[in-house]
Amino acid sequence: MKNLSGVTFPLGFTAAGVACGIKKNGGRDLAIIKCENAANAAALFTKNRVKGHSLLLSKKNIECGKAQLVVINSGNANACLGIRGDEDAILFAKMAAERFDCLPLHVLPCSTGVIGMPMPMDKIENGLKNAVLSREGNLNAVQAIMTTDTVTKQAEEEIVIGGKTVRIGGMAKGSGMIHPDMATMISVITTDANISSAVLKETLICAADKSFNRISVDGDTSVCDTVIILASGLAQNAEIVSGTEEFKLFSEALTKVCKRLAKMLAADGEGATKLLTITVNGAKNPDDAHKICSAIAKSPLCKTAAFGNDANWGRLLTAAGYSGAEFDPGKVNIWIGEVQVCKNGGGLPFDEGAALKELKSEEVIYTLDFCEGDSCDTMWTCDFSLDYVRINADYRT
Amino acid sequence: MKNLSGVTFPLGFTAAGVACGIKKNGGRDLAIIKCENAANAAALFTKNRVKGHSLLLSKKNIECGKAQLVVINSGNANACLGIRGDEDAILFAKMAAERFDCLPLHVLPCSTGVIGMPMPMDKIENGLKNAVLSREGNLNAVQAIMTTDTVTKQAEEEIVIGGKTVRIGGMAKGSGMIHPDMATMISVITTDANISSAVLKETLICAADKSFNRISVDGDTSVCDTVIILASGLAQNAEIVSGTEEFKLFSEALTKVCKRLAKMLAADGEGATKLLTITVNGAKNPDDAHKICSAIAKSPLCKTAAFGNDANWGRLLTAAGYSGAEFDPGKVNIWIGEVQVCKNGGGLPFDEGAALKELKSEEVIYTLDFCEGDSCDTMWTCDFSLDYVRINADYRT
Repeated sequence: MKNLSGVTFPLGFTAAGVACGIKKNGGRDLAIIKCENAANAAALFTKNRVKGHSLLLSKKNIECGKAQLVVINSGNANACLGIRGDEDAILFAKMAAERFDCLPLHVLPCSTGVIGMPMPMDKIENGLKNAVLSREGNLNAVQAIMTTDTVTKQAEEEIVIGGKTVRIGGMAKGSGMIHPDMATMISVITTDANISSAVLKETLICAADKSFNRISVDGDTSVCDTVIILASGLAQNAEIVSGTEEFKLFSEALTKVCKRLAKMLAADGEGATKLLTITVNGAKNPDDAHKICSAIAKSPLCKTAAFGNDANWGRLLTAAGYSGAEFDPGKVNIWIGEVQVCKNGGGLPFDEGAALKELKSEEVIYTLDFCEGDSCDTMWTCDFSLDYVRINADYRT
Repeated sequence: MKNLSGVTFPLGFTAAGVACGIKKNGGRDLAIIKCENAANAAALFTKNRVKGHSLLLSKKNIECGKAQLVVINSGNANACLGIRGDEDAILFAKMAAERFDCLPLHVLPCSTGVIGMPMPMDKIENGLKNAVLSREGNLNAVQAIMTTDTVTKQAEEEIVIGGKTVRIGGMAKGSGMIHPDMATMISVITTDANISSAVLKETLICAADKSFNRISVDGDTSVCDTVIILASGLAQNAEIVSGTEEFKLFSEALTKVCKRLAKMLAADGEGATKLLTITVNGAKNPDDAHKICSAIAKSPLCKTAAFGNDANWGRLLTAAGYSGAEFDPGKVNIWIGEVQVCKNGGGLPFDEGAALKELKSEEVIYTLDFCEGDSCDTMWTCDFSLDYVRINADYRT
């Protein structure tokens, strides 16, 4: 067997990705992932009050706990289109079900791209006709969900549960409109574990909280954010039950996959030149730790300073100051990589050359210790570059 | 009498602005505003948990309700410096009091610029020596408080209260780190009205709420944000009492001055090419109206689209969707200037040429109607340009 990866890494899954003509550049824009049986399934969706029409149908279909087919188009979000958007979502699922021989109820349609433009359903129909599923189709599929992404994002994990090899694979897209509560991202995770949809949902919530809900590119969340997990059960392990050692094992592996994908999303944030890891230690409580991480991860001033390799730690402290967290500014310590730049809230004379070296790394780690308590948190984001503005100034046109 | 403007427009005020060598470019960096008597005074300060040392001293001194001298340096924020920062603030006030013959308690020192660098007190001492106050000194003073500002900001209003002419004048600075709760802005307002410090504070809170707390450049708030008002009483009007018709007149004029300054701050946001006015109508309640305005004003995606003249109304609706406000997406109407682009939550075919003309104006007006209730709000911000990133990538170095 070939060296499989991504969503076709677990047993039972095939995929395809084709160019159907939605994207102006002629690139692949329609992805299909199929499970050979109706898989146990769970999903999480955007908390944005405005929701895409395809997303709303997936949200409804997943309620039955089963899914067999995920179809994703890029280039058009199928959002803010009224009745027509809902009808197109239903048609999308129906055409896909016919073409790939499953129940329309078991199809989860996803759309990502421009908001407010009607979907070219004839192009999608043709695309579905031309798509051929295979175990090697994952790479075409992950290419077909990219919008402003510059690299494909896939991850895999393999664990042994009760003597059986269990595989987890995943793919993700998303580069702008990225923020906790799941951003413009779409991620599909597959596994061959034998696990019910209810338990699947439990582990997915936990894994997403430590991964997809810990990244920010621009503080904007989108109307199409979705993460879906399908479990084929073909690993033939004894069913994973909540609260057991097996559950913990599976949950940790799933978190690893999600975290790897999430960090890839942050590192490939629109225009990003580096990944920023923000770690807060010693906060008064978990909520404060998260507030501080989030304020720094969202701050255009912190992010432009990172782009400019500027050891401007004052902006980190300032963002912490308006985050809403409670702390004594006179107790704060800050490090850029290994270089401590602030002690007890005041500037330290530091080696600018060493700090510059840290700032020029592919991954810059900011660590802040508030000496207030035991709570810590970590978030990932990217720097804010000239290219971010270039990319977003005329996305629609 | 010459055509007076800004802080020396009201009777009793003189000003000066000199270059004392803090700014690397050799520009003016020390401003002084003096009232000929100890004025009734009020001030509002940043809500950031981290506060500059000069600001903390002003916050303490203003408690007596009187002030005679405002001294402001740019180029150094005197922040995050521990005991030394506090000592320098006290020295700053003391030196200024000696030079300009008033009580140290009646001096309000302000500092704006880089965080974490000790203040060059010898330079400030020399600057104070060289400064000569005059009624025409307002322009030098407003130049001396600029950091990344590209234009000076001054405004004046004149009203008649009980047969007496009452003048209000003001100046402001601030361009980055601008967000409600007062941003990296410093503003000094003067008036010759006869009004107590308590009533002055009441009108200032109200005026700031409709002006300085309604602008956003980048969502960051700073550690030095201050707005100060001094009243000389030389207009010789009968004392303005809270709740009266005269109070209302004065309050409206003050709000006009603050609003004009606030809009200038937003329009001169770092790298801005245009002013964005965001008006929300028909929200369920005032809090929702404000949440939506604020989410749009902060959204890098909305702001880069404005920079690129892209009529991407989907991003406005998306930002409203994650703002936390409650609304039915199917009832939303959106206009760019006079051009309606979205009706009942769905895209309208619209004249792209007309929309482009609106987007290319110096002031772009986005209006959103949610058809949920009677609440409305307005905020001002600017677009997000390549220059914003250039300016902030290496501010410190």
